Amino acid sequence: MSQLRFDGKVVVITGAGNGLGKEYALFFGKRGAKVVVNDLGGSMKGTGASSSAADKVVDEIKAAGGVAVANYDSVEFGEKVIDTAIKAFGKIDILINNAGILRDVSFEKMKDEDWDLIYRVHLKGTYSCTKAAWPYMREQKYGRIINTSSASGVYGVFGQNKLLCCQDGEGLKRNILVNSICPVAASRLTETVMSKELLANLKPEFVVPLVGVLSHDDSKETGAIYELGAGYISKLRWQRNQGYFFDTPFTPEDVRDKWEQVAGFGDNVCYPQTSSEIFEIFFNKEDFIKQQKEGKTSTAQTQQTTQAPSVNLKADKIFGLMKAFLDRGEGKEFIPKIQGVFNFEIITQKGGPVVKSWVIDLKNGQGGIKEGKESADATFTMIDDDFEKVCLGKLQANEAFLKGQMKIKGNMKKATLFTPSLFPAPTPDNLAKYSQPKL
Amino acid sequence: MSQLRFDGKVVVITGAGNGLGKEYALFFGKRGAKVVVNDLGGSMKGTGASSSAADKVVDEIKAAGGVAVANYDSVEFGEKVIDTAIKAFGKIDILINNAGILRDVSFEKMKDEDWDLIYRVHLKGTYSCTKAAWPYMREQKYGRIINTSSASGVYGVFGQNKLLCCQDGEGLKRNILVNSICPVAASRLTETVMSKELLANLKPEFVVPLVGVLSHDDSKETGAIYELGAGYISKLRWQRNQGYFFDTPFTPEDVRDKWEQVAGFGDNVCYPQTSSEIFEIFFNKEDFIKQQKEGKTSTAQTQQTTQAPSVNLKADKIFGLMKAFLDRGEGKEFIPKIQGVFNFEIITQKGGPVVKSWVIDLKNGQGGIKEGKESADATFTMIDDDFEKVCLGKLQANEAFLKGQMKIKGNMKKATLFTPSLFPAPTPDNLAKYSQPKL
Repeated sequence: MSQLRFDGKVVVITGAGNGLGKEYALFFGKRGAKVVVNDLGGSMKGTGASSSAADKVVDEIKAAGGVAVANYDSVEFGEKVIDTAIKAFGKIDILINNAGILRDVSFEKMKDEDWDLIYRVHLKGTYSCTKAAWPYMREQKYGRIINTSSASGVYGVFGQNKLLCCQDGEGLKRNILVNSICPVAASRLTETVMSKELLANLKPEFVVPLVGVLSHDDSKETGAIYELGAGYISKLRWQRNQGYFFDTPFTPEDVRDKWEQVAGFGDNVCYPQTSSEIFEIFFNKEDFIKQQKEGKTSTAQTQQTTQAPSVNLKADKIFGLMKAFLDRGEGKEFIPKIQGVFNFEIITQKGGPVVKSWVIDLKNGQGGIKEGKESADATFTMIDDDFEKVCLGKLQANEAFLKGQMKIKGNMKKATLFTPSLFPAPTPDNLAKYSQPKL
Repeated sequence: MSQLRFDGKVVVITGAGNGLGKEYALFFGKRGAKVVVNDLGGSMKGTGASSSAADKVVDEIKAAGGVAVANYDSVEFGEKVIDTAIKAFGKIDILINNAGILRDVSFEKMKDEDWDLIYRVHLKGTYSCTKAAWPYMREQKYGRIINTSSASGVYGVFGQNKLLCCQDGEGLKRNILVNSICPVAASRLTETVMSKELLANLKPEFVVPLVGVLSHDDSKETGAIYELGAGYISKLRWQRNQGYFFDTPFTPEDVRDKWEQVAGFGDNVCYPQTSSEIFEIFFNKEDFIKQQKEGKTSTAQTQQTTQAPSVNLKADKIFGLMKAFLDRGEGKEFIPKIQGVFNFEIITQKGGPVVKSWVIDLKNGQGGIKEGKESADATFTMIDDDFEKVCLGKLQANEAFLKGQMKIKGNMKKATLFTPSLFPAPTPDNLAKYSQPKL
């Protein structure tokens, strides 16, 4: 099996003077990457600063034949941290948000200063470094970001994950993949609270392999959360129960009387990945309640649509452009990541019949588009004019969805992966360009 | 069906000048509670302050025959908010952390000021009010706390949940129940981004019934997360895949080659509720790997133990005290919430045979304790001396677990619910007191 290499990549690792961060730094240095070793050199309680910890790690990487520079800024000032990568190596490909401090006190004993300091390093630091790296990653259409959950899982690194990678498909489209890890590893931060026997099994180097895989070119994973340590690696996800749709208005007593349905987990669960998914249930309230009464479970439904006589649509030229784009193989980069088939039903007025349908295959080969309908992961229904607006960037897809200008059926996760901005916008220039065969 | 009432309860609702918070305030006012209506009176972007919004809601509650006072402090200063409840009504029973501001911008467009302001109101505000209410709830052994996730789910309210209710059983033991909701409701915060049709279905009053149920005396729910709106109520939980335990040391290539096991979700999943649960897997590495190789799935195992001849143990007197406590019916308050049967195996040296076993039934009736073993939710194994230390509060249970002084098998969630501090500490005074029949 070939070795996973990082030749030519630039990696920034925060809090890399010790423990896990140091292990990451040494690993990436050995595997060909250029490494920025960030460490404030503070004590493990987050106070004080010195440059020696980062320098030692840089020396160790260089001694092994690697390339590395040190950065001593607080992660609260992410621009300074990322600037070091830009100045030394001209870019930033991989960001490992690892800096953390130990404030493992109970809620009752926690002081406001503890809370504020944890916030500044964990949450604000991750935000600030990511924010600074993002424009570079966006521009170069490449990025790998690994966030680290704080020791006690108090902070919302998971939420950030979602914001970055799933909210509008922005990250995926630009090949920026964001994942989170909750590592359990022996370090300055944990050796005060665990037995020697346990510590011996919790080597920091047992966390490195997963980070290597998630940071690699070949990775397709994004928005995932892993809990790992001692050689064990597991993945977490949200599960939602079927829930209950009350006929409105309703009372607390109604909720109490349906508590088993509201709070229990039966067979009919789903795995939401975006905050938009609950709207699919809202928009299909009548069907949900009907099926709820019948004891059925799925929110899926089949829609009877009348195929109207064909007319000239703005969508015609847009799908033509998309087809030319795919036929030239220009979409092949994102096909493996999207892996979805999408039906598009174009209508000309709200509630009107479907005038024309297209199916976009972003699953097989280099993708393809044709008229008609197929068994699809998701089906979009849109008014012709609105569809053009979305493709031109004049109307946000999410806004169109929430305002009822776009209907979505099927797998909402897959639906979220599709965005017209994967394709060139249907501007006059692009329409002209893609109507010509590629030279 | 009887109405859920809140007579005699004191409720603090943050951000109660408008929208959801206002609905909660009116609801609790009608149902007999004394209400503190907190509202800074800021604009929905979080700037500025006036007292009119809170005053209007107070007037409305009073006009309907209810009892209410206003508070105008920022939730960043939780002590001031809670002080209003203490001064006006002498206590705080229910805290609804609802204050929020709209900064629904994409990550790219987000400014540092946006981030900081959201943090201060959502995360710090929830922390600060909860921190201020906690000592009162702890002292009176009663509390209900509802946290609200921010609009885009960016922040770690979920994590706080966990910290408060599950970390050491502290909340449960004192009948303080903490839950989180992610409401979707039409308000000043959402009306700018949604269609009128959708908004009409997202009435704030459709969020109130669940909050009523979770805040009520009868509720046993804690640590749960609900997503709701438009009459639909669903519950979320973390699901963990089976994962993979690598023989150490291992490489990124090993992880890549086992990717399906590492990242895929098969039938063998679990639902972790505490951050300690992964340690059960760590401590049972050999069994896990063996079963992994055999294609088996459970981490459960049966332990062969040799029953040593009975000797006098410190545990004898402690279990005697616990038994007297339960026999007097003093544990009946927490039995319905714990609902677990626990085996205790006492050893006299590390790795030594089990000298004596007890089974504590905290599931049936008013609970009971007897010698022997039963089919239990969890089994604790401890050295006699350490067991006494834990019961006297000289050794933290969590510390004993992490240091290997306590072994736990079985359902870790249930195990976490058991804490010796449910019972009177085995001090000489208590031992004497509980050796007498209750007068």
